[in-house]
Amino acid sequence: MKAFQASLPLTLDFEVGAIKRMGEKVEPFGKKVFLMVDPFLQGSDLVAQITGSFSERGIGFVEFYDIVPNPRHTTIDRAVEQVRYSACDVVVAVGGGSAIDSAKAVAFVAVHGGSCWDYTERLGEAVKRPQSRGLPLLVVPTTSGTGTEATPFAVINNPELGLKCAIVNPLIYPDVALIDPQILVSKPPKLTALTAVDTFCHALEAYISIHCTPWVEMVALESIRLFAANARQCVEHGDDLEARARMAFASTLGGMAIASAGVTVAHALGQPLGAMTDAPHGGTVAASTPHVIRWTLPVGTDKFARVAGILDPSTLSLAETERAARLPDILQKLFTTLGVTDTFRSYGLRPEQIEAFAQTVWTSFNQDLACHPKKINSKEEVADIVRMCF
Amino acid sequence: MKAFQASLPLTLDFEVGAIKRMGEKVEPFGKKVFLMVDPFLQGSDLVAQITGSFSERGIGFVEFYDIVPNPRHTTIDRAVEQVRYSACDVVVAVGGGSAIDSAKAVAFVAVHGGSCWDYTERLGEAVKRPQSRGLPLLVVPTTSGTGTEATPFAVINNPELGLKCAIVNPLIYPDVALIDPQILVSKPPKLTALTAVDTFCHALEAYISIHCTPWVEMVALESIRLFAANARQCVEHGDDLEARARMAFASTLGGMAIASAGVTVAHALGQPLGAMTDAPHGGTVAASTPHVIRWTLPVGTDKFARVAGILDPSTLSLAETERAARLPDILQKLFTTLGVTDTFRSYGLRPEQIEAFAQTVWTSFNQDLACHPKKINSKEEVADIVRMCF
Ligand SMILES: NC(=O)c1ccc[n+]([C@@H]2O[C@H](COP(=O)([O-])OP(=O)(O)OC[C@H]3O[C@@H](n4cnc5c(N)ncnc54)[C@H](O)[C@@H]3O)[C@@H](O)[C@H]2O)c1
Ligand SMILES: NC(=O)c1ccc[n+]([C@@H]2O[C@H](COP(=O)([O-])OP(=O)(O)OC[C@H]3O[C@@H](n4cnc5c(N)ncnc54)[C@H](O)[C@@H]3O)[C@@H](O)[C@H]2O)c1
Ligand SMILES: [Fe+2]
Ligand SMILES: [Fe+2]
Repeated sequence: MKAFQASLPLTLDFEVGAIKRMGEKVEPFGKKVFLMVDPFLQGSDLVAQITGSFSERGIGFVEFYDIVPNPRHTTIDRAVEQVRYSACDVVVAVGGGSAIDSAKAVAFVAVHGGSCWDYTERLGEAVKRPQSRGLPLLVVPTTSGTGTEATPFAVINNPELGLKCAIVNPLIYPDVALIDPQILVSKPPKLTALTAVDTFCHALEAYISIHCTPWVEMVALESIRLFAANARQCVEHGDDLEARARMAFASTLGGMAIASAGVTVAHALGQPLGAMTDAPHGGTVAASTPHVIRWTLPVGTDKFARVAGILDPSTLSLAETERAARLPDILQKLFTTLGVTDTFRSYGLRPEQIEAFAQTVWTSFNQDLACHPKKINSKEEVADIVRMCF
Repeated sequence: MKAFQASLPLTLDFEVGAIKRMGEKVEPFGKKVFLMVDPFLQGSDLVAQITGSFSERGIGFVEFYDIVPNPRHTTIDRAVEQVRYSACDVVVAVGGGSAIDSAKAVAFVAVHGGSCWDYTERLGEAVKRPQSRGLPLLVVPTTSGTGTEATPFAVINNPELGLKCAIVNPLIYPDVALIDPQILVSKPPKLTALTAVDTFCHALEAYISIHCTPWVEMVALESIRLFAANARQCVEHGDDLEARARMAFASTLGGMAIASAGVTVAHALGQPLGAMTDAPHGGTVAASTPHVIRWTLPVGTDKFARVAGILDPSTLSLAETERAARLPDILQKLFTTLGVTDTFRSYGLRPEQIEAFAQTVWTSFNQDLACHPKKINSKEEVADIVRMCF
């Protein structure tokens, strides 16, 4: 057995309607909340319910809505200033991965000082790595996709440098992730599909990663089972609370999986494609996944076969190799059913950009490539894979 | 979706040979170790390796071997005195569930004072419930059975009162559970079988418990899968490190499952039977399990069918009801293969004791009975179940 570690150093709290009891949840952690809310919720009843639940308990709050997809370091630094100025002692985030990542950084930097950018991992540069936690942090995810509520990562965008880097530190896990399926029912079908596919790719990539462990195997396969059983229902019947809850759990498990085992080629390609084209993250990852699997076979036949069997039980009668070989087509069909059909080309990558794009992947996402079960030896090989995705 | 919470507030650290690096693992937590070692290890190389790794790093230690199965409150209180007297600032336990439960209590009480018995849950009596953690605690399980490394429970025996009660407090989780399969290879086949069956029953009982959650479903079913794939190999080829590691992980997952969902009838009967007859815990639980399942059917058909399918994939072609109905026989056969064949009668329970025994179960283990998916309404019903187990 390869050595491995596992933990889940936060409380996952799944409850329909919990958002109305936010005040109660926050009370043990502080007296004045810095409330970071995804702008899509600004002015909504939901925010009124949350702030109402604070007031009921005499908990103060400062609202902050300045969040954009792919959060900027400058915005986060501004938020930190406000936290300090207004003497908030607890951070609450309600929103997508971008809002939650912002809040993870804000809570940490508010205690340890300086600019959030100094805490991100950058090759060959000094990185601030404090040894203690930041302000208490409660997060309420509104997209079931990134699983960031259960990872030690916060992805931060620095447009001036043209870089998207991450804080990677087990001390930035939230204290509590409150998952209220009620908030998810209004999520539009397209966003639902894109984020669900992102979750699936987290689970799949962590499962096939060379850093997969018995722990990752458990959470990743459960995430895939829940995705298989609930993603389509969430897209087609968004008001099914049970399906929303289970898909939200799948997302959290996907986060737990990548927290331990990382991501592999599809994310290594999807992330810079998203940065270049502003295409939605889940779509950019899905665009390459079937092709990457086809290229990866026959490495990891057993794992691909297992996933194929979960997604399409009718393949369980096939021999393992044959079942594994079906996975790319099963996925292509499944993504199409969910309405996730964009390609590298439709997202705007032009054939003449492939070399430069492969160069970026090779230099900036080498760590993800290194997790892939089939070894990638050069930027030329990356370019070859990108060509297969066209 | 029913509301649920999940967390794993400790680090699980699986590593072959880790025990030799115990000093390194302890270093972040303290300077002087109270080392509680299961007496079966006294004088062994293993202890020398551990203490050697402390000395290498200048970490002091006090050894303590006074541990018996079903740890006594008086022994624990004596250990607490020694911790205080010798000013130890971290507790390390190496041993079975009894050693680890002792250490959980010692680390907690050493900080919060008084007798450990005052912290146990006793109906209608005042219970000490401090709001902060005890001394740092690292544990190394040597039986793959109880999963106590991943539960908030410490079971303590008070022979004067004839009671076995538990501290139940999320603050008593260890900081680190170090699981070194190397220690497990010398575990005798009989103990291996008995503790493996205990693990299986934890997973099964938590899975069918009315408090089962999506989290419990995941960890319990994975525990059952690992048990199915590895228990027999551990009994027959104890030196298979991979099988030992996976069975150890199954045990930890079983602990996580009961930490969330509790146990049900088989444990409600097995615990007082063990207390009465001093029979091994795993055996007392296994003795009733097939009978209890037969009595419980058809409640929970889907779950019993799922477990049957994992233990005996040849049943997967059967309809669900029929597959579920096979589970008692599958288990009876499996336990027999593992050499776990004792019955209530062979453990020394006499038919004329059944009424009194049922009374004890009804009054002292009502909480476990209440988790069972088929409702139990009276001590007469308990007596009926006990009769079925004869
Ligand atoms: N930290 C991690 O572990 C981790 C992992 C993966 C991705 N990420 C990061 O997370 C970010 C992406 O997060 P995301 O996919 O959740 O999207 P997002 O947070 O960027 O949100 C996308 C858009 O959807 C809107 N939105 C969010 N929830 C909604 C809802 N319920 N209904 C309607 N609109 C809603 C937002 O306002 C935004 O306009 C990226 O920055 C990515 O790098 C982080
Ligand atoms: N706290 C919890 O969550 C929890 C859960 C279930 C059971 N328990 C408790 O745990 C205790 C039972 O623990 P257990 O089943 O691990 O047994 P145990 O710790 O009582 O040990 C049983 C015997 O096996 C010996 N032993 C231990 N490891 C060995 C090895 N590797 N090789 C040879 N001998 C070994 C011990 O010295 C002892 O004599 C009971 O008190 C029970 O109530 C606690
Ligand atoms: Fe992603
Ligand atoms: Fe048990």
